[in-house]
Formats: sequence, structure tokens, C-alpha cells
Amino acid sequence: MSNFANFREIGRKIVCVGRNYKDHALELGNPIPKKPMIFLKSTNSYVAEGNPIVIPPGCQNLHQEVELGVVIGKQAKNIKKDDWKDYVAGYTVALDMTARDFQDEAKKAGAPWFLSKSFDTSCPVANFIDKSKISDPHDLELYCLINGQEKQREKTNSMIFDIPTLISYVTQFATLEPGDLLLTGTPAGVCRVQSGDTIEFGLTGIIDSKFFVQ
Amino acid sequence: MSNFANFREIGRKIVCVGRNYKDHALELGNPIPKKPMIFLKSTNSYVAEGNPIVIPPGCQNLHQEVELGVVIGKQAKNIKKDDWKDYVAGYTVALDMTARDFQDEAKKAGAPWFLSKSFDTSCPVANFIDKSKISDPHDLELYCLINGQEKQREKTNSMIFDIPTLISYVTQFATLEPGDLLLTGTPAGVCRVQSGDTIEFGLTGIIDSKFFVQ
Ligand SMILES: [Mg+2]
Ligand SMILES: [Mg+2]
Ligand SMILES: [Mg+2]
Repeated sequence: MSNFANFREIGRKIVCVGRNYKDHALELGNPIPKKPMIFLKSTNSYVAEGNPIVIPPGCQNLHQEVELGVVIGKQAKNIKKDDWKDYVAGYTVALDMTARDFQDEAKKAGAPWFLSKSFDTSCPVANFIDKSKISDPHDLELYCLINGQEKQREKTNSMIFDIPTLISYVTQFATLEPGDLLLTGTPAGVCRVQSGDTIEFGLTGIIDSKFFVQ
Repeated sequence: MSNFANFREIGRKIVCVGRNYKDHALELGNPIPKKPMIFLKSTNSYVAEGNPIVIPPGCQNLHQEVELGVVIGKQAKNIKKDDWKDYVAGYTVALDMTARDFQDEAKKAGAPWFLSKSFDTSCPVANFIDKSKISDPHDLELYCLINGQEKQREKTNSMIFDIPTLISYVTQFATLEPGDLLLTGTPAGVCRVQSGDTIEFGLTGIIDSKFFVQ
């Protein structure tokens, strides 16, 4: 059994896919992507349970996006879809916190997404789950509640691009390394969170996590 | 004297600024930015001298951008402009290799820049230069030759946002960590490079570096 409990310390990047659930793409008025839309979060984004999510300065519209995370276990370059499992150490669940107002401004200007996606505490993340504990990562249920009210609930089989496709696509361009995290996109139900809010999220029956917005 | 010769191994992000020299913003038909335009390269981008620059699959228009790099020496959050020097370990020079066709497509779609900026070998980088060897990083000359022909030559005092401003701006949002690299933007003269080309670049009188495009 591999041990990547410390993936937040050893990993050097968080590779994310945008608009990977149809209903989420549509709720923000975006087209359904024809190929994976990849972006980065840097590791300063990580925040562990017990620490607050901090709204970045100037942000007026912070959104939560609950996502299944794939923890990479082995250096991966030009990986064939069929071989994807060899490169996965395990899973986790995370929030891809997004300063939606910053992102809207960037999208309009054709500018990069750094400010909207990589601010400190923009990646609240749960613990590592060894892959031996999850027989099929495409048969999980993501959920997210804000102040006890359900906002997101969706099966991971609704992804537009599945995990083998994402690993194969990304590694054509960029090497994935042990401890790197791949965030696989969020289903519909993102919304504004505010100071004082509690966000509970997880994978039904597998892992639960709770964070506060400072 | 700090030793960050291994900054490529210990650093976890490359924070870059786009359009930080007026003539370069204009040569690509972009507006002069009113605030720093920040994006990320992930550390899989690094390539050291002796290894080739590899054109990413599908890219038809790979550009070189020579840039002064600032190596962070100490964890930096909410740094005041006047204190910037305390957080710098030293400098280097690098190429921010850019798949301009991928970037043009992303800009039009309001999509993130990952594919155009973070492919493997997209950050050819020279060695670490301790800060004791550079009295004023804003009084250096960047240069870049392709196949012996001069393409870029500019003083670093032409930056729109200087290093104190960049460090102060970025650390309002994202913590910089020891070994992280800050790339400070490229002057005018970017152009297409092709398989077989030799790129020589550096800081006049301080450091010279040479890479080949495979
Ligand atoms: Mg980006
Ligand atoms: Mg997301
Ligand atoms: Mg650049």
C-alpha cells in the first residue's frame, strides 16, 4: 500500500480541469468543452482542516467547487489511457475555491486565471485515501453543503472527460509527478460563500470534510 | 551567502508576469496593463542547460521570451515594497517559452494559459546568481540571440512594474516560498523558434546560457 498522506508537502502542482460536468458549464453560461480545459493552482493554495478559508483582498464573489482529487503516485509522461491506474496513488476530495469576480474579469480580458484560482487557502483539501479503498473512482458521489443546506450532489460518472482521459491528455504536455494533485472538475451548484459560512463536503460514505470561511 | 543553487528542486512554483515591458505588450497588440498580469508555470517546465527545448505536440508557433528571474529566499506574505530585498536569495535568467498559437486560442476563448505556458521544457533556466553579486537588478541588460542573430536586448529598468511592486502585489494573494522563481517579464523581440534553432540568452557581463530546440 502506497503512502501519500503527505501529498500536500511533496507535490509541486495542482492540475485542474474546468467545465468537466455539463450542468456546471451551463450554469455559468459557458460552452461544453471539446477538449479538457486545464489550469493550475499552486501549492500555496492548500489549506488543511482546522484552518480557515480566507477571502482574497478585493474579492466580492467567492465560490466553492467540490471536486474529486486524484493523487499521482509515479512520474507520468505520455501515458496511455489504459495504463492510467499505474500512476494513481489514491484520491481525496477538495474545494477549488474560485474568486468568480476575478475570473470573470480575466475571462473578458483574455487574461490568465492565477488571481482567481491560486490565492492562499483556495484549495481546502481532505486527507489522502489509498486507491485500494476505492474500487471505481467514476462511481462515487460528491456532495457539498453550505451552512447545512445542500448545494452540490452529483455522481462522478457525470464527468465529461474521465480520469484516464485527463491523465492521458495532460501528460502529453506536462509530466505529472508523485504527490501532484489532479482536480477533476465540479458539478453544478456552485454559489457565493461569505465570511462566517461553514462548508461541508465529501464523497458520500467515504470521506467528510468541514471548513469555515473567515 | 545563501545557497539556492538547487532552487529548481526545492521551489514549488514559477510566478510570472505578462506584458511587463511596454514595447513587448505593444508588439503583440496588447494594452499596457494597469496592474501586474500574473500567471503560473509549474516546475515540470524547468529544463537545464544541456537538455533540449521540446516543442509541445500541435504547437506551430513557439516563441522565446528572455526574462530576469528572482529566486525567493524566505517565506513571503503581505510584503511591503520597502522590505522586498529581505525575501530575495538571488537571481537567474530564463526563457518563458510560449506556445503562442495555444495562447492566442486561450485568449480568444477567455480560457486559462496552462497549455501555452506550462508544457515540459517551457522554462529553460540558467544557474543561480547570489544576490551579493548583483547590486541593482533594475540596472541589468537582458539579451537573446537566435542562431547568432540578436532578437532581444533591453535594460531591466524598462519594467512597468519593478521587483518590489511585483513581490508586494503577488504576496497580497499568494505566499511565495523559498526556491520559488518570479519571472519578471520579457522585452520586445519575441519571435518564432523552430526545430534546430540555437537560443543564446543572458544578462550582459553576468551570465550566458545556451539551449537548442529539438
Ligand atoms: Mg493560468
Ligand atoms: Mg473547478
Ligand atoms: Mg513572459
